[in-house]
Amino acid sequence: MLKVGIVGGTGYTGVELLRLLAQHPQAEVAVITSRSEEDVRVCDMFPNLRGHYDQLAFSVPDAATLGSCDVVFFATPHGVAHALAGELLAAGTRVIDLSADFRLKDAEEWARWYGQPHGAPDLLPEAVYGLPEVNREQIKTARLIAVPGCYPTATQLGFLPLLANGLIDPSRLIADCKSGVSGAGRGAKVGSLFCEAGESMMAYSVKGHRHLPEISQGLRQMAGKEVNLTFVPHLTPMIRGIHATLYANLLDTQVDLQALYEQHYAQEPFVDVMPAGSHPETRSVRGANVCRIAVHRPQGGDLVVVLSVIDNLVKGASGQAVQNMNILFGLDERMGLNQPGLLP
Amino acid sequence: MLKVGIVGGTGYTGVELLRLLAQHPQAEVAVITSRSEEDVRVCDMFPNLRGHYDQLAFSVPDAATLGSCDVVFFATPHGVAHALAGELLAAGTRVIDLSADFRLKDAEEWARWYGQPHGAPDLLPEAVYGLPEVNREQIKTARLIAVPGCYPTATQLGFLPLLANGLIDPSRLIADCKSGVSGAGRGAKVGSLFCEAGESMMAYSVKGHRHLPEISQGLRQMAGKEVNLTFVPHLTPMIRGIHATLYANLLDTQVDLQALYEQHYAQEPFVDVMPAGSHPETRSVRGANVCRIAVHRPQGGDLVVVLSVIDNLVKGASGQAVQNMNILFGLDERMGLNQPGLLP
Amino acid sequence: MLKVGIVGGTGYTGVELLRLLAQHPQAEVAVITSRSEEDVRVCDMFPNLRGHYDQLAFSVPDAATLGSCDVVFFATPHGVAHALAGELLAAGTRVIDLSADFRLKDAEEWARWYGQPHGAPDLLPEAVYGLPEVNREQIKTARLIAVPGCYPTATQLGFLPLLANGLIDPSRLIADCKSGVSGAGRGAKVGSLFCEAGESMMAYSVKGHRHLPEISQGLRQMAGKEVNLTFVPHLTPMIRGIHATLYANLLDTQVDLQALYEQHYAQEPFVDVMPAGSHPETRSVRGANVCRIAVHRPQGGDLVVVLSVIDNLVKGASGQAVQNMNILFGLDERMGLNQPGLLP
Amino acid sequence: MLKVGIVGGTGYTGVELLRLLAQHPQAEVAVITSRSEEDVRVCDMFPNLRGHYDQLAFSVPDAATLGSCDVVFFATPHGVAHALAGELLAAGTRVIDLSADFRLKDAEEWARWYGQPHGAPDLLPEAVYGLPEVNREQIKTARLIAVPGCYPTATQLGFLPLLANGLIDPSRLIADCKSGVSGAGRGAKVGSLFCEAGESMMAYSVKGHRHLPEISQGLRQMAGKEVNLTFVPHLTPMIRGIHATLYANLLDTQVDLQALYEQHYAQEPFVDVMPAGSHPETRSVRGANVCRIAVHRPQGGDLVVVLSVIDNLVKGASGQAVQNMNILFGLDERMGLNQPGLLP
Repeated sequence: MLKVGIVGGTGYTGVELLRLLAQHPQAEVAVITSRSEEDVRVCDMFPNLRGHYDQLAFSVPDAATLGSCDVVFFATPHGVAHALAGELLAAGTRVIDLSADFRLKDAEEWARWYGQPHGAPDLLPEAVYGLPEVNREQIKTARLIAVPGCYPTATQLGFLPLLANGLIDPSRLIADCKSGVSGAGRGAKVGSLFCEAGESMMAYSVKGHRHLPEISQGLRQMAGKEVNLTFVPHLTPMIRGIHATLYANLLDTQVDLQALYEQHYAQEPFVDVMPAGSHPETRSVRGANVCRIAVHRPQGGDLVVVLSVIDNLVKGASGQAVQNMNILFGLDERMGLNQPGLLP
Repeated sequence: MLKVGIVGGTGYTGVELLRLLAQHPQAEVAVITSRSEEDVRVCDMFPNLRGHYDQLAFSVPDAATLGSCDVVFFATPHGVAHALAGELLAAGTRVIDLSADFRLKDAEEWARWYGQPHGAPDLLPEAVYGLPEVNREQIKTARLIAVPGCYPTATQLGFLPLLANGLIDPSRLIADCKSGVSGAGRGAKVGSLFCEAGESMMAYSVKGHRHLPEISQGLRQMAGKEVNLTFVPHLTPMIRGIHATLYANLLDTQVDLQALYEQHYAQEPFVDVMPAGSHPETRSVRGANVCRIAVHRPQGGDLVVVLSVIDNLVKGASGQAVQNMNILFGLDERMGLNQPGLLP
Repeated sequence: MLKVGIVGGTGYTGVELLRLLAQHPQAEVAVITSRSEEDVRVCDMFPNLRGHYDQLAFSVPDAATLGSCDVVFFATPHGVAHALAGELLAAGTRVIDLSADFRLKDAEEWARWYGQPHGAPDLLPEAVYGLPEVNREQIKTARLIAVPGCYPTATQLGFLPLLANGLIDPSRLIADCKSGVSGAGRGAKVGSLFCEAGESMMAYSVKGHRHLPEISQGLRQMAGKEVNLTFVPHLTPMIRGIHATLYANLLDTQVDLQALYEQHYAQEPFVDVMPAGSHPETRSVRGANVCRIAVHRPQGGDLVVVLSVIDNLVKGASGQAVQNMNILFGLDERMGLNQPGLLP
Repeated sequence: MLKVGIVGGTGYTGVELLRLLAQHPQAEVAVITSRSEEDVRVCDMFPNLRGHYDQLAFSVPDAATLGSCDVVFFATPHGVAHALAGELLAAGTRVIDLSADFRLKDAEEWARWYGQPHGAPDLLPEAVYGLPEVNREQIKTARLIAVPGCYPTATQLGFLPLLANGLIDPSRLIADCKSGVSGAGRGAKVGSLFCEAGESMMAYSVKGHRHLPEISQGLRQMAGKEVNLTFVPHLTPMIRGIHATLYANLLDTQVDLQALYEQHYAQEPFVDVMPAGSHPETRSVRGANVCRIAVHRPQGGDLVVVLSVIDNLVKGASGQAVQNMNILFGLDERMGLNQPGLLP
């Protein structure tokens, strides 16, 4: 039984981790921390957990207690993991960070996008980007894992078979992404209010979103060369879900795209290539650790359109974190993650 | 491993049964029927099931095939189970009916409310009303179970401790109930359209809803005398969930209502009495087989207000059906039903 | 042309006032104040107003400037109008307060419910409660008007014909009310987030909501005697709308309730009595200054059920405020308020 | 006072026409037709209209009655206007068709996309495409107007300044469009149910949507040459609104895009170019006849991103139809269309 710690469990990725771990036969949450909610029981903050964690309460982060865990998840704003990760690794604890702290390989670039110096550049070389469909082998032996962001997961899995096989022009990639409001977190912001985000659609951060360098880094690795991505995120009036609509110019219009995707992901437990002509719905993955993908070539032209959907809180965050934990500790990768989505 | 059959699996209670049974270690869906969708795979109709029932397809109802199952669930419109249940019982198959066909003890009353003669009055005497918190013992030995409706479940569990202890005036009970739109089913009706039911609130069937006689029958049994209930259902712009707000006049204002509820439900695995002063949210039970209840006495007057929430598709239908199956076959009542709700 | 001032225009009642006044032929917004948003143009904060108030910007409240207006609306949190109203009245400006500051006649009671001393008890005697269907005559000559709250408007208009005619038992009145989330205002609160309030239903403040004393005061005036009301508000996943479901015991079961309501409201421009058997939808009044009412007697018993719907931001706030302004200044009561609701 | 007829008023564009015309000082609805709803009052079908059209009821379409109107709007499925338009034009009645019947200049192409022969090819030469920002002069003297579709309006207005000035490569245009569910109409389809379309995002008709040839025809006219458009529509969980996100490659990266758009639309009453860096929200145009546009150049690259939002039922249908009527009859183009959007 793995002894699990969670740092910063008061947000949506935190409650989702608790929901998923409650169904995991080999993991047990021993400690969960929050500076603001000390001694509050998690089930009092999140009533869906009543009957599952009746004794678990938030404590202030303490390196010794966390260091006694086999694995610690960081479900924190950026910057927090920088400070604590090193100490935990020294104590022999594996660290799985859901924040952006260790996703970018280049500390300078991180500092530019996050507006503060990187707090643990020395750890970057060993940090593994936790996208199992790309880095499964490195994950197995990692000590420190950076769980990909939600937009990056949907976008990279959508482009992967095309870029890995050099089938598209990497210099003009477009990702038009639609996210549910939970992607904005549980913070009390006017823009996330029911009456502001409801019954409306809008793009945001068109001039540059923090997930852009993360996605570009991943696509660059797949392509083995420089890429040029235009990324436009949109706030969508739903709670969960990301729908990535990807556009690229085909270099080879003879390839059977459907077969390519089916073969590429044939062995992947959590990537579902839909039948030709499908239109995946985000609700089909609600609560599930699955990415569903469909590939199209409208009017048989040279433009490929990839539709990729995930639940931003599951395959886009907490579910993928648990998937990484399973790989890391040699468990069945599906363990605790095999429920169908909630539909309707 | 129980061999399970499902009659009429194309609606929301059908897909929810499949979702729950996919996680049940002791049950396997052997056959699912639909006259309209013959040979369609369930995962093609409900994409959340992809990867879980890849071979299961709808077949036309056939008594022999169904009769070879240990248990058959009816997730059908009223009237269908009347015709088939007898034959299946004769074959030794247990029947768990999610429709209204066997809920009312009085065939005449059923005919009045459903506008057609009762098709199997001879089976009524042995039909057990599947509300475990009231009839657990009878369920254990039943052959035919009528799963309670969604409104009736939330309302009866809310009133039970009060009526069973003669603490309220049974002649003036009020149930003001709010239901998500999935309660109206998956039928293509204008009133259930996103643009008709969304961003709006309305009462319906105020002059008489089919769940009224069912609830009254249950409350009468609890009270051991005639009851008079005013039941006003409302259509609420959410997919899942029922919030029952119950009003009654206290005959005894000295009783400790909080203690009463906590004691009454102390041993119940799926009824959660919230702390004093709580306001249960329907989202806290989304996807979960739980009824959460809070009891209030505003301004310390003689009126008691009970707040009772369930997921209409789980504790209000398919989850309760599986709970009945577990009891019926001597399994752990919680088996396959122990996931936390999906929040947010 | 009336010169209008608005104090505190950064909330939902503020932007709704601006929307309605933009269509009012006899009113012009000369000044709008906000301490936090000085110099911000209203159309930059509320983009729906672009093209309508391109020059109007928030200024800090200044008694002299406001005092030069014919009428000043307060769209502020409670307490603010207490401080400013007296000065404006002294300057000959009419004051229409959308907050709770002058709704309760009893300063002590106000202090108890609002947790602070009443700031202008001397003004209470002349403050007129701005419910035109009850106090139209007093409104015509008022200097200071307290616009009713949203729940109080829907509830009082629903009970009025019954109480005014002594047809129900005033000692056991129940108002089960459902409100859209905009009723909670534009403040950044976790409970009002899309992911917290969406797809869920919950009651709140069951032990006592600030609108209770306001409603009780109004019902007492109608009944001419003490009343006992149980008021249970619910947060509903929609932006606008209040649905009040009212319950009372009939003292006279011979009366023709439909005729009673139709006659009582025959001359009212903004109360619409629906045909017998109707179920008003909140969306039918979205954006409109109308209260739609239906009256039912389920199973012909002695319990009357009244369904009353309004748009909380229009007839429940800003629209009713403009209606009061029209009456106050001898304009056609319908002026600027005659648009149909937005459906769908 | 214009005498107005409406053919097929039982859908969302019908009720929206009635809402807008109720506020139009120079138009009066004399007749509204529906084969299915004969003698039903419009206010009984659409309760938001109670108090506005209390006597108006649906009648069966009759050429003589309709021919006595100054103008007849068709708010019908495609094919209906083909049959009736000629007769009405012969009677001297102006025809404004909200359906797709006269939008495509090529009858063959229409037949291919709509799966039936064109019913009135002889009328195509004189049909004017009612996009005032492009064809205002022709509209003034037209007898038959084809009101643009919702996607086509948002997309064409977004691309217009760029194509008209030859600033982008017409061979690789992308329109990623998100539409509210009302775009699917009021028909009872499973896919439009609250529980199917709610809380989910999906693309549809990726291989070819009927609005594609209409948009291409318009863009071709603007560009004065062949264009190649990839159009991907998405179903978004909101009632009203279209958000078009447009992508194109700049041929000239020196041009000041903000100035270009502001100048191009400076005189347009219903196109609002937002300040540089803006992200228009669909809710800002809810109920309003406005198209709001923002233009971006992410990372200063050679790709231009245009954000264009409308209310699909107003500027995307009924509002634009009234705008056409105003132009056609020499009225102020803004007449009856000048209300701010409903926010929140």
